[in-house]
Amino acid sequence: MFKVTIRDHIMIAHSFTGEVFGPAQRMHGATFVVDASFASPELDENGIVVDIGLASERLHAVLADLNYRNLDEEPALAGQNTTTEVLARVIADRLADSANAGDLGPGALALTEIEVTLHESHIAWASYSRPL
Amino acid sequence: MFKVTIRDHIMIAHSFTGEVFGPAQRMHGATFVVDASFASPELDENGIVVDIGLASERLHAVLADLNYRNLDEEPALAGQNTTTEVLARVIADRLADSANAGDLGPGALALTEIEVTLHESHIAWASYSRPL
Amino acid sequence: MFKVTIRDHIMIAHSFTGEVFGPAQRMHGATFVVDASFASPELDENGIVVDIGLASERLHAVLADLNYRNLDEEPALAGQNTTTEVLARVIADRLADSANAGDLGPGALALTEIEVTLHESHIAWASYSRPL
Amino acid sequence: MFKVTIRDHIMIAHSFTGEVFGPAQRMHGATFVVDASFASPELDENGIVVDIGLASERLHAVLADLNYRNLDEEPALAGQNTTTEVLARVIADRLADSANAGDLGPGALALTEIEVTLHESHIAWASYSRPL
Amino acid sequence: MFKVTIRDHIMIAHSFTGEVFGPAQRMHGATFVVDASFASPELDENGIVVDIGLASERLHAVLADLNYRNLDEEPALAGQNTTTEVLARVIADRLADSANAGDLGPGALALTEIEVTLHESHIAWASYSRPL
Amino acid sequence: MFKVTIRDHIMIAHSFTGEVFGPAQRMHGATFVVDASFASPELDENGIVVDIGLASERLHAVLADLNYRNLDEEPALAGQNTTTEVLARVIADRLADSANAGDLGPGALALTEIEVTLHESHIAWASYSRPL
Repeated sequence: MFKVTIRDHIMIAHSFTGEVFGPAQRMHGATFVVDASFASPELDENGIVVDIGLASERLHAVLADLNYRNLDEEPALAGQNTTTEVLARVIADRLADSANAGDLGPGALALTEIEVTLHESHIAWASYSRPL
Repeated sequence: MFKVTIRDHIMIAHSFTGEVFGPAQRMHGATFVVDASFASPELDENGIVVDIGLASERLHAVLADLNYRNLDEEPALAGQNTTTEVLARVIADRLADSANAGDLGPGALALTEIEVTLHESHIAWASYSRPL
Repeated sequence: MFKVTIRDHIMIAHSFTGEVFGPAQRMHGATFVVDASFASPELDENGIVVDIGLASERLHAVLADLNYRNLDEEPALAGQNTTTEVLARVIADRLADSANAGDLGPGALALTEIEVTLHESHIAWASYSRPL
Repeated sequence: MFKVTIRDHIMIAHSFTGEVFGPAQRMHGATFVVDASFASPELDENGIVVDIGLASERLHAVLADLNYRNLDEEPALAGQNTTTEVLARVIADRLADSANAGDLGPGALALTEIEVTLHESHIAWASYSRPL
Repeated sequence: MFKVTIRDHIMIAHSFTGEVFGPAQRMHGATFVVDASFASPELDENGIVVDIGLASERLHAVLADLNYRNLDEEPALAGQNTTTEVLARVIADRLADSANAGDLGPGALALTEIEVTLHESHIAWASYSRPL
Repeated sequence: MFKVTIRDHIMIAHSFTGEVFGPAQRMHGATFVVDASFASPELDENGIVVDIGLASERLHAVLADLNYRNLDEEPALAGQNTTTEVLARVIADRLADSANAGDLGPGALALTEIEVTLHESHIAWASYSRPL
């Protein structure tokens, strides 16, 4: 199995609902360093899993809709805590939609899995992986 | 699949038995930077895999029993080389016991896998993963 | 010259005033991985620059006053943009006050410089250094 | 499952064929930081997955055949783009041959998987994993 | 003293002249992860050392003239080994010219030092610092 | 000013004397990731600060005298705590002796400073710098 990973980041504000979150129930924020992985059992005729230029552009576009925002005010994310886990799934699902729509190029049709990891600090990170 | 990882560390002394270890047969030591991962196919109603505060406390407690010690003198580890691989399993098993005992909260009952990675230097690390 | 550095982090929300900040004028946030360095030309009789346990506690206490907060609402930071540079100075100055007050132990009186670096992402960081 | 990983690196020149590569069609180069992982469900009687000394030597030998070279001129790599993905497979396959030939010691016969990750920069990496 | 650092990278081919370089006399290549630091004793009225957006654009433009190239064929670099040290100076000098030309904005006139660090691998890096 | 840095590591056991060390008074250990920096205002005719091959060999030799040992039993280190700070000075002084003895080649005579940083974990490190 081949896997290609690219890194980008977002800087957001949010707050959480639920006693389990302690002081994180207050308005605070995070830099999420975002790693997006694309897996495929085979390479295309160019010897790549995916056009890394296209993939970087799409990841950046997906992140631009979240970046420099207060996620508590984003209608698309309403009614849930925007935890690291939840955001990993949101980003992975949007990348999957992009791949399925052909935005990552024809080679992306061979992708079998997308995994998105969000590093919230040097001591904590979370990921979500899903088939394509 | 969702995965959450937290990082902590220990600083221990030990020696190894067996010619394969060369100079590491002498008393020496290591800083192990420890990454503990908790995997679950679903999030709980708060949008998390596990209470990261509880998980960090439990990991710290498990590591406290090893930290700042000469592992050659620990009865619980007697009769085996405390290699990076062996210690990864010891820590993963103790975390699994903690999860099964409910110490990580009720949400932890949905956990399906624990993986523990020990970084022994910038050029070598080892991990052990097991189902829950 | 000897230097000892310890690492901790904060997760905050804020917004900036000034066109130069572009989208960062919106409410957003950051994880700041904080490195605090303590410099001294000499070691004390224990062979250390500073009691690293005490220094870690003091750094953690200084950061606790900022952590999990919307910095736009902190009276002590009013009237200025809480940029990475500004926060590095705030933290360095509070650590310096701590050192001068004897909170870092008697050995800390030999400290000659404090430097604080805030990593806002994997591609940007800022620091402030000052004499003691 | 146990996994042991070791890190080394190579510095190579190459060029790519195919419009998808844009400016990387020109002669350029890369440092690849190479992580080689060896997986096994069981530890040997010494408590290890593989003799890490032997594994490091073999990885270094495999990399020496690629290091400080213009890969466009390597007969063994002719007729394909030496992308990060392709090189990950080349290195993994050569390590697998080494393991199967007994070069990693008798314990290596229990290995079930090899994974090789090549970091081409701080924001992009690729891996190839295969059974043994 | 305040310092702001931003990170970018280049991927180049080159060869060296001189027996001291051993196998690096052959055509090979490198990824250089480039950290550019800008120092100033004071912050501007926005609370920043330099407009980080402008600085990132300028660094990227300076690197674009080197990126995805065989440096042996660059007229501007002829007659010298393009070692990590030499390239750090080339990039620092070009950034200094940019700052002096006002490309980094009016605030950049207060800059007192530029330092450029090039990481050639996980185990070696070099830097060049100069006054402004 | 030019600076070149190389990285290596040691794995040692030791214990400390003094109440300030708390549990580190017990026999324990550490991996020290060691960064050695060599500074010079000028490059030699090859375009380098120092022969990085020679410097790496010398650093490795200096570290070999400490590696895989219980430092409490090393006569050369007797009568002092082998703290991170103390070890940084020991290594820097031995490298300086090497440079002064010509072991780093004739170019090393232009070196003006050596700095050694020892990373004891992902959250603590110490350095010692000295003129040459």
